[in-house]
Amino acid sequence: MEEQVQYLGKQSISFKHPVFVQAGSGVVGKTEGDGPLAEWFDEIDEDGKFGQKTWEEAESEMQLRAAKNALKKASMKEEDIRMIFAGDLLAQSMASCFGIGNLDRPVYGLFGACSTMGEALSLGAMMVAGGYGDNVLAVTSSHFATAEKEFRFPLSYGNQRPLSSSWTVTGSGACILGKKRAKVKISGITSGVVTDYGLKDNQNMGACMAPAASNTILRHLKDFSRKPEDYDKIITGDLGYVGQSILLDLTEEEGYQLQGIHDDCGILIYDREKQGTYAGGSGCGCCASVLCSYIIPNIANGKWKRVLFVPTGALMSKVSFYEGHTVPGIAQAVVLEKEEF
Amino acid sequence: MEEQVQYLGKQSISFKHPVFVQAGSGVVGKTEGDGPLAEWFDEIDEDGKFGQKTWEEAESEMQLRAAKNALKKASMKEEDIRMIFAGDLLAQSMASCFGIGNLDRPVYGLFGACSTMGEALSLGAMMVAGGYGDNVLAVTSSHFATAEKEFRFPLSYGNQRPLSSSWTVTGSGACILGKKRAKVKISGITSGVVTDYGLKDNQNMGACMAPAASNTILRHLKDFSRKPEDYDKIITGDLGYVGQSILLDLTEEEGYQLQGIHDDCGILIYDREKQGTYAGGSGCGCCASVLCSYIIPNIANGKWKRVLFVPTGALMSKVSFYEGHTVPGIAQAVVLEKEEF
Repeated sequence: MEEQVQYLGKQSISFKHPVFVQAGSGVVGKTEGDGPLAEWFDEIDEDGKFGQKTWEEAESEMQLRAAKNALKKASMKEEDIRMIFAGDLLAQSMASCFGIGNLDRPVYGLFGACSTMGEALSLGAMMVAGGYGDNVLAVTSSHFATAEKEFRFPLSYGNQRPLSSSWTVTGSGACILGKKRAKVKISGITSGVVTDYGLKDNQNMGACMAPAASNTILRHLKDFSRKPEDYDKIITGDLGYVGQSILLDLTEEEGYQLQGIHDDCGILIYDREKQGTYAGGSGCGCCASVLCSYIIPNIANGKWKRVLFVPTGALMSKVSFYEGHTVPGIAQAVVLEKEEF
Repeated sequence: MEEQVQYLGKQSISFKHPVFVQAGSGVVGKTEGDGPLAEWFDEIDEDGKFGQKTWEEAESEMQLRAAKNALKKASMKEEDIRMIFAGDLLAQSMASCFGIGNLDRPVYGLFGACSTMGEALSLGAMMVAGGYGDNVLAVTSSHFATAEKEFRFPLSYGNQRPLSSSWTVTGSGACILGKKRAKVKISGITSGVVTDYGLKDNQNMGACMAPAASNTILRHLKDFSRKPEDYDKIITGDLGYVGQSILLDLTEEEGYQLQGIHDDCGILIYDREKQGTYAGGSGCGCCASVLCSYIIPNIANGKWKRVLFVPTGALMSKVSFYEGHTVPGIAQAVVLEKEEF
């Protein structure tokens, strides 16, 4: 079996037989639907409630809709999915426990903060390439209102935000990975390690995650013996403007120039000037919805030939913050390429 | 690659080349050290603080100690581990984000409530059998004091407990899975689906999880064409006394008699009469520590030849409880067998 896999260093894997993206779907809320990527999303809910009573139920419903849309686009039924990798930001991954559980398929719950979509794609791709399933589903979500309640202040309190703070994306992305040849493929991954530079500001998550992004991207380029120019785009999850500038500095110090190649889902999803979203979008629905609705279609249509997708996560909870802990980061890299027919 | 894997139905996998347990270690707190399995544990901490300032730091340190003990018993270094699958019960998996991150290996965070060790073993075994790593580490933890704070009442409030309530185990189990032939092997798995019978009592988790345990065990026996008697033991995670009686009823209704074969880590770990632990132990450190310190050694020493290990999880959070949601369950089954030399 080892012949199917090529180890690269201690953190990377190159798939000899790539795994293909069968379909992807991004479902978002109103603020995201008012942003620059509006035309790309598969579904925009007008009030972010998705017809539910509570914000948590709304997030579960949004995740389920993204999954069902992806199944529909791939002309598949629930039974065609061998296993689901799902995650979100809520305590005990509640958005994923409800909702996606209704699909009645084996579920593996994940937590990697906002990097969870990278984790889901990595594990999903390894499972398909390893022969454990013809098709697997990777799905994550975040919701502005559930995240504010979970991590920050009651919405009605009207807390002021610092300029370094990010705006949690109300969004979910669902992606079906499978063996059947398709326009977009996953050809390799670089797994992330927990990276802690000692930062403690949970209102500046971009700065907390940038070292992890730098770490994973540099590791990836070395393991695959590639230069940044070998990618049309290197797209991180939710570093935002603050994290981006730190990432560009950190990688430049190591002799890698990402300027012009680097983009960030948190920057792409909102119009900072018009929308007042400060440092950019965040949440594990941010990179997931942008991936499924914007990145994958733009590889499929030939705009980009090879993209390094690097979801980033800030590892923290209310309790870890109150107890004075640092906010370590983690980043998972996935190589997406156009399959030439 | 498919030749290495045998699908069985929609939820089970049989490994043609089994994965071996290289070493396991269970580290627990004082209450567990006063229980019937005391002599089996690798380390018992006298005050459950593990030399740390906060309960959360104690849980992280306990997880790290379990991992380091397992590495030592396997005569391995951190670098020998290709990837880590880790999880716990805290919001945003904080016990696993700190502590185990210090090992500087790729980490995949998991959440399956108290079934997380089953999820970690399943994914870990698939990764090793799939050729993605020579050795992987599966580790989970729970802590009485962090769990009470996370899910219930402040300890100093002295809340009364109903008899159906369980006692969260202060414990962590770490298990290294690898290719090298060893005394105990994983020969197959049955993945769990979310099972919701509509129960809402978070002080009776055994009842909430029993349907999921029954579901996975029955699915497993059908997929592998086996009878309960084909196992020396079928050991669930933390159903406790209440959940056990429901499981025995549910499986009997389907024509399977588990009486005498079924055991439960939550029942095994405490002496109900002497310790006042009511329905039994719970938490994802319960089945993990009992697995690593008691089940694996008793397969290695020949007492049992084949054990079905079925960690069970109750999917809930404070928020889902306050919002009136049900508590669905999930159970992941792993076949452990004695390797005959």
